[in-house]
Amino acid sequence: MTTNTERGLDTALEYLREHDERNLKQLDEFLRIPSVSADHELRPEVERAARWIADELTRIGAEHAQIHETSGHPIVTADWLHAGADKPTVLIYCHYDVQPTDPLDEWIRPPFEPRYEDGRVYARGSGDDKGQLFMHLKAAEAWLQGAGRAPVNLRFFFEGDEEVGSEPIEQFITARPELLAADICLVSDTDMYDDEGTPAITYGLRGIAYFEVKVHGPFQDVHSGQYGGGVDNPANVLVKMLASLQDDKGRVTVPGFYDDVRELTDAERTAYAELPFDERAWRDSIGVAESGDGEHGFTLLERLSARPTLDVNGLWGGYSGEGSKTIIPAWAAAKVSTRLVPDQDFQKIERLFVEHFRRIAPPTVKVDVKVIHGGAPALTDLDSTAVRLGAQALEGAFGKPPLFQRMGGSIPVVAALEKQTGLKSLLIGFASPNGNFHAPNEWMPMANYRGGMDALVRLWQEFGSASRDELRAD
Amino acid sequence: MTTNTERGLDTALEYLREHDERNLKQLDEFLRIPSVSADHELRPEVERAARWIADELTRIGAEHAQIHETSGHPIVTADWLHAGADKPTVLIYCHYDVQPTDPLDEWIRPPFEPRYEDGRVYARGSGDDKGQLFMHLKAAEAWLQGAGRAPVNLRFFFEGDEEVGSEPIEQFITARPELLAADICLVSDTDMYDDEGTPAITYGLRGIAYFEVKVHGPFQDVHSGQYGGGVDNPANVLVKMLASLQDDKGRVTVPGFYDDVRELTDAERTAYAELPFDERAWRDSIGVAESGDGEHGFTLLERLSARPTLDVNGLWGGYSGEGSKTIIPAWAAAKVSTRLVPDQDFQKIERLFVEHFRRIAPPTVKVDVKVIHGGAPALTDLDSTAVRLGAQALEGAFGKPPLFQRMGGSIPVVAALEKQTGLKSLLIGFASPNGNFHAPNEWMPMANYRGGMDALVRLWQEFGSASRDELRAD
Repeated sequence: MTTNTERGLDTALEYLREHDERNLKQLDEFLRIPSVSADHELRPEVERAARWIADELTRIGAEHAQIHETSGHPIVTADWLHAGADKPTVLIYCHYDVQPTDPLDEWIRPPFEPRYEDGRVYARGSGDDKGQLFMHLKAAEAWLQGAGRAPVNLRFFFEGDEEVGSEPIEQFITARPELLAADICLVSDTDMYDDEGTPAITYGLRGIAYFEVKVHGPFQDVHSGQYGGGVDNPANVLVKMLASLQDDKGRVTVPGFYDDVRELTDAERTAYAELPFDERAWRDSIGVAESGDGEHGFTLLERLSARPTLDVNGLWGGYSGEGSKTIIPAWAAAKVSTRLVPDQDFQKIERLFVEHFRRIAPPTVKVDVKVIHGGAPALTDLDSTAVRLGAQALEGAFGKPPLFQRMGGSIPVVAALEKQTGLKSLLIGFASPNGNFHAPNEWMPMANYRGGMDALVRLWQEFGSASRDELRAD
Repeated sequence: MTTNTERGLDTALEYLREHDERNLKQLDEFLRIPSVSADHELRPEVERAARWIADELTRIGAEHAQIHETSGHPIVTADWLHAGADKPTVLIYCHYDVQPTDPLDEWIRPPFEPRYEDGRVYARGSGDDKGQLFMHLKAAEAWLQGAGRAPVNLRFFFEGDEEVGSEPIEQFITARPELLAADICLVSDTDMYDDEGTPAITYGLRGIAYFEVKVHGPFQDVHSGQYGGGVDNPANVLVKMLASLQDDKGRVTVPGFYDDVRELTDAERTAYAELPFDERAWRDSIGVAESGDGEHGFTLLERLSARPTLDVNGLWGGYSGEGSKTIIPAWAAAKVSTRLVPDQDFQKIERLFVEHFRRIAPPTVKVDVKVIHGGAPALTDLDSTAVRLGAQALEGAFGKPPLFQRMGGSIPVVAALEKQTGLKSLLIGFASPNGNFHAPNEWMPMANYRGGMDALVRLWQEFGSASRDELRAD
């Protein structure tokens, strides 16, 4: 048997190499579909992307490809379950929707006309996440068409709402659990460690609690000469309230906020300290001269992924036109969000924040606090079989072992699957950490694209060597 | 002579009463012209208002009525200089432009269709300041047409840019000083003390220094999950910086800000304390439950007019749409202004503010501070002859002596005339302190309108009894 699957692996890898040119043409076709989930006018394009995927799944030999209508955009599922009942089943998750392209004039080429340059492919979605979804299709094809079968059972779960909050997935997981039944979920929506070919396994994700706050004063804008000094200005009050949410050590002041934060172990801190990190290159990539102290007592890398944050995401109210308008505005508002780490509970944080923000409001104003959305943080056990096998597959493909990283953002499906079905996720992704996700001129290194498909082909081989129980173990 | 002018006064007052109905028709016609200086599309209407005034000046017997083109809207001047060379010359200042009418749907009737109800006239400009300008035309007419001559020499100076900052007046004062040569300027752009017929002389105006500030972080919006905790968020920094501009006693923290503030004398504080003031009615008029502490150690009335302030007039930056966008914004901005009191120098305050705001910026961000506009505070000597005569005229018309008040806002012409020509101003106005200037449903009490014309007729009589030197004395 071992000889058989090893021959299967070689055949699958060979199939990938032989179809490289055709695959690139297909990638180009897929990236040209402007599947921007935030743009209502592009809804037909998002649907076209879903159909493209379903057709391709069928073509490569997956079965039961289906497009499911949801409250948002379609979810695409399919499966191939012929590896044997004793073999593990892997649920493959990616998303096919992409971020909006604003500001469009900062793109060197139109975002949906991929260009191949300097060993990169530039296009919206090339890294986040259509490029990675496409790699999964091709890795599965290499097994099913090249080797004739796969070493594991495969299920596919592709959504079109990740960039707008993944609203429909909870309902879908509840409604159609049989389509997602698996021993492990493989999520590819993260990045490699650097642009030097160092692969990564992402073992932590931050959660989120997102709020909108509004401070109301006089029932209409009033003249700042006539009333200034006599009436509490809602914009002055709002900035004081927001400023008070962090102390001078960069810590969030909401009482109880840190109660459930799992502190970094000495081993984790040592691992963080040993991660190669070019802080200057990182700063240059976003155009800041200094990174700031942030929360005191933690390194930049720790603060970026292992510590909770509080950010003002938007501010508005009063006069913002040309010149001057001498008013005390009737109200001022802000979007505020906190990133959460294990074991913070986003619903508890939501409650604490709302109570705190109301409590600190002076009696001269009225305050609205709305919870916009929340998501739980996640952490994978580094000693698990899945992590070990993932590391072997990555080392096989890239010639060096992966580094282990936490990611600052959140991927809602990870928390939703675990909470609703108990299914654990392994996060292996291939985008560049500097790849301009959510920004103009998004790009993906071609080396990651080819290496990533190689790694995925190897990963199914590795998973096929494990028992279902081993893969399910935390 | 005394008998003659007293007979003149009676005749002028009688002329007013006889023409009350015709005057109201003319007022209606004048208020119907939508002379909104901030609206470029209404430029022809602003010009129509200027022509209406110039025609009326000529009709009532003033001479040399002229419409002067400026960098903004027209300035209208005229004179009547036949009282004798030994008689004082009074420069009468009002403005004929009005505030915009937004939000239009909160007006009970269209703003340029005056309605007469409950002893009030409702219309944009009824109080601020077209109604008052019209009263001056009719008071002058009463003397020139009714009595055949006036007891003082009169010059008229009416501008069309007061609601947008009075930009053109400095240049006009420099270019045409001969048209404004006078012994005193009478400015009618203020209000009475209450709605119970208590007249007022406004002896203090606050100045202003108005800024736009912008805090820049990363060169574009970045993902708050990926970068949160590692990069100083410009919106977080801005709210901290703005919040720090006032301490917990409500005092402005810009170093040197209070150095030149003329402190209230005990007599002034006693006078403030004795002013009748219904704080609850005041709060109700703007819909706030509590007025707030403001600057500690000062009463509400003192804070409203005799103390400097700092107000955030507008905030913007980052995401303000529906739902959430998980970004650290590239920048965040605010409009900030300070109201100034004697003897603060607005140019010095501008310098101090700009230096301070740059100094408190952390090294992780870049800061732009723009000075938008400034204006000097003003204070009239309460012991002057002009004030005494003004008080007599007001008592004659309203049956009770005026109260003396400082006003929280600024009237740019007052500072400009004094700075450029040394001419002092006396501020006597007739609007209601609750008259919704700059807000929907602006209104003027008919009692103030009729009493005000009566007072102005008497004022020229009083001024005619004084020497030029007495009126010029500070």
